[in-house]
Amino acid sequence: MKQDLDRLMTDRDLDALWITGPANHNPAMVYFTGVANITRTDLIKKRNEPPVLFHYPMEREEAARTGLRCRNLNEFKLDQILKEAQGDAVRAGAIRIARMFRELGVRGRVAVGGTVELSSAYAVMAELPSQAPDIQLVSDSADPALTRARSTKSAEEIEHIRSIGLASTAVIGETAEFLSSHASKGDFLVGRDGNPLTVGRVKAFIRTKLAQRGGESPEGLIFAPGRDAGIPHSTGIDQDPILLGTPIVFDLFPCEVGGGYFYDITRTWCLGYAPEDVELLHEQVLRAYTEAERKIRPGMPAKEVQMSVCRLFESMGHPTVQSDPQTECGYVHSLGHGVGLDVHESPYFSNAETNSDTLQSGAVFTLEPGLYYPDRKMGVRLENTLWMRPDGRVEVIAPYPLDLVLPVGRGSKTKTASIGKKASSTKRKTGRLPMRSRKKIRQSGKKVR
Amino acid sequence: MKQDLDRLMTDRDLDALWITGPANHNPAMVYFTGVANITRTDLIKKRNEPPVLFHYPMEREEAARTGLRCRNLNEFKLDQILKEAQGDAVRAGAIRIARMFRELGVRGRVAVGGTVELSSAYAVMAELPSQAPDIQLVSDSADPALTRARSTKSAEEIEHIRSIGLASTAVIGETAEFLSSHASKGDFLVGRDGNPLTVGRVKAFIRTKLAQRGGESPEGLIFAPGRDAGIPHSTGIDQDPILLGTPIVFDLFPCEVGGGYFYDITRTWCLGYAPEDVELLHEQVLRAYTEAERKIRPGMPAKEVQMSVCRLFESMGHPTVQSDPQTECGYVHSLGHGVGLDVHESPYFSNAETNSDTLQSGAVFTLEPGLYYPDRKMGVRLENTLWMRPDGRVEVIAPYPLDLVLPVGRGSKTKTASIGKKASSTKRKTGRLPMRSRKKIRQSGKKVR
Repeated sequence: MKQDLDRLMTDRDLDALWITGPANHNPAMVYFTGVANITRTDLIKKRNEPPVLFHYPMEREEAARTGLRCRNLNEFKLDQILKEAQGDAVRAGAIRIARMFRELGVRGRVAVGGTVELSSAYAVMAELPSQAPDIQLVSDSADPALTRARSTKSAEEIEHIRSIGLASTAVIGETAEFLSSHASKGDFLVGRDGNPLTVGRVKAFIRTKLAQRGGESPEGLIFAPGRDAGIPHSTGIDQDPILLGTPIVFDLFPCEVGGGYFYDITRTWCLGYAPEDVELLHEQVLRAYTEAERKIRPGMPAKEVQMSVCRLFESMGHPTVQSDPQTECGYVHSLGHGVGLDVHESPYFSNAETNSDTLQSGAVFTLEPGLYYPDRKMGVRLENTLWMRPDGRVEVIAPYPLDLVLPVGRGSKTKTASIGKKASSTKRKTGRLPMRSRKKIRQSGKKVR
Repeated sequence: MKQDLDRLMTDRDLDALWITGPANHNPAMVYFTGVANITRTDLIKKRNEPPVLFHYPMEREEAARTGLRCRNLNEFKLDQILKEAQGDAVRAGAIRIARMFRELGVRGRVAVGGTVELSSAYAVMAELPSQAPDIQLVSDSADPALTRARSTKSAEEIEHIRSIGLASTAVIGETAEFLSSHASKGDFLVGRDGNPLTVGRVKAFIRTKLAQRGGESPEGLIFAPGRDAGIPHSTGIDQDPILLGTPIVFDLFPCEVGGGYFYDITRTWCLGYAPEDVELLHEQVLRAYTEAERKIRPGMPAKEVQMSVCRLFESMGHPTVQSDPQTECGYVHSLGHGVGLDVHESPYFSNAETNSDTLQSGAVFTLEPGLYYPDRKMGVRLENTLWMRPDGRVEVIAPYPLDLVLPVGRGSKTKTASIGKKASSTKRKTGRLPMRSRKKIRQSGKKVR
């Protein structure tokens, strides 16, 4: 958490952080400023002192609203600096940064951060030693102080994540209702005009609903049927129709508008009915999800959960990244990742020997087992975002039913809430799990335990 | 244009470009890949050779769809590289990049690009010399080859910009209609429930309409009334009501979904009526816009247009960035900027002595004069995005009326198209311009000349 930052900087012998770039879609900056319409700014945080935000004059009001200590760059007389640099914008940038450090009395080891275009940033960083010889830019990347601080969340951050999480589940519900309201013709869904509903049309629906709820999806979204469901990051092809009985991986990872906190959730749906092999895959993934959720405890190494999921899938006969690191079918990725201002952040669940990330109290992360068989035109992934609460319990931040089958042709008046219920009563042909555990897993994703 | 890139690389003695980061919201990458759901990738373009895209296995299908030469990173056995680097992810990253260069036979001067988080990128760049001693990363930033290539647009790029431009003007029309459909109560607009319409509600409306039309607004949007209109980058405060007779600066700068091409357009509106001083300001800004649009020719230095606007505004009695570089009222910014995969890119219109940007044939840029008086609670900006066509003509890519006054209480059935017309017939009390020139400027923003 932010309160740990000074200690983490001391541990790493850092004298300051220098964050650069805009105050939107820039996690390192937004962590301090919140989402703000500041297009170019620099923030310097000296160890054991509050951060200072350097802004251009046009953005002074937006800067002031962050509540941070602010400095208007007009004071630095940028036109004179540019003359001094003989018109070289890169050198002028380095002179300005050097003066900002000097004014705050920063010397020594400075870690850089911020999401920016590399070409100009690299140029200024390369020039900085000539302008500020007492500053040493350090590549603080094995376990950066800021990354570490951000990997556990405050109550305020949880409320941001919950807010975009509830928007996400509402949009998933609206999408389910939208799909279910369509009639089928032959193998695919059709609109009122009799034309096939397409993946592109569904995605436009999802994006519009997200915008209505104050979310955006800067990293895209996945609505991937059939073969594309079998490749985890294939997003679905706009022109494709929505086929009945074909698994669709629907992975939604929006953030608060402007680049705030993310949520990450995946459901796999079959419209109308599920073929036996898809149903089996879904049950196996659901079992892996449920066992992982049950297993996690505060302080547990993330890798341990990943390894146990690999063992479970291997016992079911699937290749995994543990049995074959290059596999492109079976279980081909890691179990999850932290979620915050980045959709992927610490802790990571990779089974690399070197992964020492643990599930700290306060961490927010996904659990997202999946099984993929692109050549058999199927894939299933189920994902929730969870919070390791300070009281030691694990909470799914925004629950939503995990069912596979969505009924179709139910008319647009149908209430979303009933869809999950209806689907869960769909007759299952492949009862690979005993009833008792099936009942338990049906509830996962709805509970705090 | 892209076809100039090899020549530009030769001029700068560059052996290769190395672009890193995702294939969305990353202009340098999207320039080659188009918008694609590839979350982490590296692209290497050797001089006089087509670019090669290095992708993770999960994203192989999305990578293939870019049409570029692709290499699956599985071939590089990343787990072995990590072992070789003794678990140091930064060193492993540098080893991998070094091998990619070696496989393509790249040596010598390499320019970096891509919008990424600096901390890890800087770390890998700092480690690279140890792993690839024959590679020299260069800070190619005074006039980078890629920036230069991107500053003139192909016909295909123009169609992307036109598409998001037409979405923008459609959304502006819908917003005008939405505002006009509201009734007024006392000084402000109210909804059907009698509660004041707020800036936040209008922004939510705009974002939803944008999403419906395949746009997104990752850099935010400005809907700024009164005092906020007087500060160019103030975006408007969500809780504020919409007051009658108060200038609202509405600046929309969306991109194609996923981080494609941008458009940039600003209108200033008064609901119901315009006070005399706002009307005068609007006429003055409109005159500056029209004269600038009329003045520009292929090859003209951008600064020349900026300087003539400064002179015009000074002749009207306004302070400008030319008469006082630190001014925070009057004309406080430059006349425009290039628009493409970045909302702000070359050419720039700054009046800095060092600005040598010219309006090349093929360039796409904004013209956006404005006058700002925050203490008098007013500001006016008018902006279009224009294309310097290969035939020498200048084209407003997506025209929209430039009128100041929007009528209110017209009911929601009113057609958008008629609003501009109606507003332009609103009685004007301050005829500072002769009728003939007023008629001319009324048409600007609608024509190709």
